[in-house]
Amino acid sequence: MVASEFVSELRQRYGVEFKDLAILDEAFTHSSYVNEHKELGLKDNERLEFLGDAVLELTVSDYIYRHYPDQPEGKLTRMRAAIVQTKSFSAFSKEAHFDRYIKLGKGEEAAGARKRKTLLEDLFEAFNGALYLDQGRGAVIKFAEQVIFPKIDAGEFAADMDHKTELQEYVQQGGEVAIEYRLLSESGPANDRSFSVEVAVDGKIFGSGSGRSKKAAEQAAAQDALTTLKAK
Amino acid sequence: MVASEFVSELRQRYGVEFKDLAILDEAFTHSSYVNEHKELGLKDNERLEFLGDAVLELTVSDYIYRHYPDQPEGKLTRMRAAIVQTKSFSAFSKEAHFDRYIKLGKGEEAAGARKRKTLLEDLFEAFNGALYLDQGRGAVIKFAEQVIFPKIDAGEFAADMDHKTELQEYVQQGGEVAIEYRLLSESGPANDRSFSVEVAVDGKIFGSGSGRSKKAAEQAAAQDALTTLKAK
Repeated sequence: MVASEFVSELRQRYGVEFKDLAILDEAFTHSSYVNEHKELGLKDNERLEFLGDAVLELTVSDYIYRHYPDQPEGKLTRMRAAIVQTKSFSAFSKEAHFDRYIKLGKGEEAAGARKRKTLLEDLFEAFNGALYLDQGRGAVIKFAEQVIFPKIDAGEFAADMDHKTELQEYVQQGGEVAIEYRLLSESGPANDRSFSVEVAVDGKIFGSGSGRSKKAAEQAAAQDALTTLKAK
Repeated sequence: MVASEFVSELRQRYGVEFKDLAILDEAFTHSSYVNEHKELGLKDNERLEFLGDAVLELTVSDYIYRHYPDQPEGKLTRMRAAIVQTKSFSAFSKEAHFDRYIKLGKGEEAAGARKRKTLLEDLFEAFNGALYLDQGRGAVIKFAEQVIFPKIDAGEFAADMDHKTELQEYVQQGGEVAIEYRLLSESGPANDRSFSVEVAVDGKIFGSGSGRSKKAAEQAAAQDALTTLKAK
């Protein structure tokens, strides 16, 4: 079962109290732990992660829809993508001390999985999936009001909202470089065109993307390049 | 304002009655109509589409999470992707006669936008976004119980759940072909590996994809190839 100090911490820090501790336990059980303890017949947190992903997507979408009534859809979509991503969710997980309480198999523990960002992201989603099942969407919103929304209001995700700006900042850490967006193709009728673009950094291609406008295709290419660069 | 026969039809067929007809009207206003009638200061349906996308994602996720308690996360994710896609959403839109009531600009009308699948998908999302704002998530679930869930239960999305099978069926309409998945790269530590795969049809590369397992990468490559092929 989940540690009693964690149950207390959730109550004291966030006012969250689970009715069904088994579902909270499931959210904190990594597949590697299940595999190492087959005799216990445990469930890992992956199904809850699937559900929590969608719960958080709506929670964030609803918030920015209502709080930015004058922003067009394209801006809302970029905001959502900047908030709902590994970097943010793993940071929320750590802030809430979720990393202390995830149950891992020995191999994963030794490999440093407790600090792995994708694991912490999955854990944040699983926790919110469990909270949603246990107490409904209102409880997830209440939790987000403490952990996510204040950071949106404070502009913490602003840099990530514009992928082209982020790419520029990222590659220029090491000095000046030339970033070039090249149009690869245009297709479709005038009212439904599609554009493909690649992005080159100092002449080397790092990503590509497509969209309904050149601007959208360039944002997608910049995002693709950032994914490639950050994976290195 | 939205046509009164549409208001009646929504009530009679689906038991849906909007409190605020202005929000329903917004859902059925295409950006091309707004651009042609700038003097009216209308809002297009794109922000509602943004919201509806997330509402539907959770509605479908919640349903399959609860109705398939024994399916692992990977299967749920493939099911969700098969349901939440242009093909399905545009078909739902037509079935509900939404295509009859969208307000389009003259240019878009002439270009056949009323039948365009991406437009019908966006419209289905915008309608559900409007329904959610007007009456909450319960109303969206009630609507989905009539329009989406019975089709999930009937297995209508089964073929799309497995992209490799769908790709095979798609390319073999014109006779036997050879489909080959080639491993491009493997990277990362043993417990967090990443695989890249490309897929070739009769020797020609049609798509690529990556994932945490070879199987997942192959599914992603097949999905990528299908997107390319269907856009032709």
